[in-house]
Amino acid sequence: MNTALILRYDGTAYHGWQSQKNAVTVQDTVEGAIAKTTGLFTRISGCGRTDAGVHAKRYVANFRGRHPIPTEKLHLALNSRLPGDIAVYSAHLVDEDFDARFSCKKKEYTYLIARGGVRDPFERGRVFRNPESLDISAMSAAARRFEGKRDFAAMRSEGSPVKSTVRTVYYCELECAGNMIKIRICADGFLYNMVRTISGTILLCGRKKLAPGDVEGILESRDRTAAGMTLPACGLYLTRLWYDEEALCKARENEE
Amino acid sequence: MNTALILRYDGTAYHGWQSQKNAVTVQDTVEGAIAKTTGLFTRISGCGRTDAGVHAKRYVANFRGRHPIPTEKLHLALNSRLPGDIAVYSAHLVDEDFDARFSCKKKEYTYLIARGGVRDPFERGRVFRNPESLDISAMSAAARRFEGKRDFAAMRSEGSPVKSTVRTVYYCELECAGNMIKIRICADGFLYNMVRTISGTILLCGRKKLAPGDVEGILESRDRTAAGMTLPACGLYLTRLWYDEEALCKARENEE
Repeated sequence: MNTALILRYDGTAYHGWQSQKNAVTVQDTVEGAIAKTTGLFTRISGCGRTDAGVHAKRYVANFRGRHPIPTEKLHLALNSRLPGDIAVYSAHLVDEDFDARFSCKKKEYTYLIARGGVRDPFERGRVFRNPESLDISAMSAAARRFEGKRDFAAMRSEGSPVKSTVRTVYYCELECAGNMIKIRICADGFLYNMVRTISGTILLCGRKKLAPGDVEGILESRDRTAAGMTLPACGLYLTRLWYDEEALCKARENEE
Repeated sequence: MNTALILRYDGTAYHGWQSQKNAVTVQDTVEGAIAKTTGLFTRISGCGRTDAGVHAKRYVANFRGRHPIPTEKLHLALNSRLPGDIAVYSAHLVDEDFDARFSCKKKEYTYLIARGGVRDPFERGRVFRNPESLDISAMSAAARRFEGKRDFAAMRSEGSPVKSTVRTVYYCELECAGNMIKIRICADGFLYNMVRTISGTILLCGRKKLAPGDVEGILESRDRTAAGMTLPACGLYLTRLWYDEEALCKARENEE
C-alpha cells in the first residue's frame, strides 16, 4: 500500500523539508503525525528538498505501509495532529512504484519580490522586499534568457555533488500584480539554490547592474561569481508539480 | 508639536492596542520605539482599542513633544526599532488639538471568512475558516439590515460602560473573491465586539440558522443572546479611517 499526500506549508519555522538530527523539519513533523495517526513509523519520500524558510503552496510526499484509516479521511486525521503551518489537502492510493521525488516530471517554483520601501507586517517571512526602482521590462527579458536546455553551473551554490549541471527550463517568466513581482520558473529539475540565484540575476537586471544580454555569457562562463546574488529563502515557493497521476497535479482552486 | 503616525500591524502576537501592565501591546511597543528614536517618553493616543489578535491594515496614532528627527524620516527611524509585525508608513505634523481617537470621523472594519474545510497555512491567525456551506445572498441581505442609525445593544459584549448604544452604520456589505468573504462595516463608532457579533449574526444567516428578516427583531430586542456568536479576533482588521486631514485618510496603494 503506497499513499501519496498533497501538502502545503509555511516554511518559516522549519529547517527545510528534509529530516535532520538536531533541527525541526517538515518531513520529521509529517512523519510524526503519520505515526500518531496510523501507527506506522515510516519514512516518507518528498518531491523535493526545500531549504530552511522556503514555502510550499503545493507539495507531494508518499509513504508505504498498511493502516486502518480510510484514504479519503486521512487528511483530516493528519491535520488534527499537525501544527497550523502545515496542512494536508488530500491523500491518494498510488502504484507501488510511485515515488514523490523520482516520479515527478517537472516542477514550478515562484519567487516573490515586493516593490517599495516600507515592509508590510502581513508579508514578513513571505516575500523579498526591494526598495530600489526596477526596470520591469529588462527583468522580463532577462527571465526569458534562462529558458531552454542549458548548463546552469553558474546558477548553483555548492552543495551535494550532481552528475550533471544541465537542466531544461520550460519557462521562466515575470508576472506583475500591483507592487508584487512573481518570477515563475518551471524545469525538469533544479540545482542547489538555482531559483534563488536566477531570481537574483533577474533582479540585478531590474536594477540595471546587469543587462538581459549578459545572461548568455554568464551561463556560458559556468562561473557562479558572474551571476547575481542568491536571494533569501523567504520569497521562494514551490507552486506546481507534474506527475502521470492527474490527481496529484491538479492545483487547488484559488491556489494563491 | 503634535505628530501623527500611520501604522499597520499584524496583531497575532499582541494583547491588543492598549497599554497593559503585564502583557505586550502594540501601544507599548510603539511607545518604546518612539522613546529610543526621539528620546521622548510619551503616551501616544491611538484611533481605537483593537482587541488581542485583531489586526490593523491602517491605524493612526499621535504623540506630542519636540524631537530632532525630521518628520519625513521619522517612519524609517521608527521601523528600525520596531519588530517586523508592526510598520510605520509615514509621519505627519498635525494641529495641536488633533487627537487620533477623537478627531476620527468614521472607521471601517473588515471581517474575513474563508470558505472550505481545510485550513491554509498561509492564512493562520488571519482569517476565520468556515467549513459549512453558506448562502451568500442571505448573508449579503442580512448585512444590509445593519445599516442606518440604530441601537446596537444586542451586538455588543459587556465591557467598559458607554453612555449610548446607538451608532450609525454607513455601510455593511459583503464582498466575495474566490473562497474569501469580506464583511465591510463602516460606522461613526463601534461598541465592544460589535463587528465580531454582527459578523457572527451574518454568518448564522449564511448557515440558514437565522434569516435576514430576523435582524430587525434582534436589534429591537436589545438582547445579546438573540444575536449570533462573537467570531474570533483573527479574522478582524481595521481597514479605513476618515479624518479632516486628508493625508491621514488616503489608503496606501494595493492596501490588501
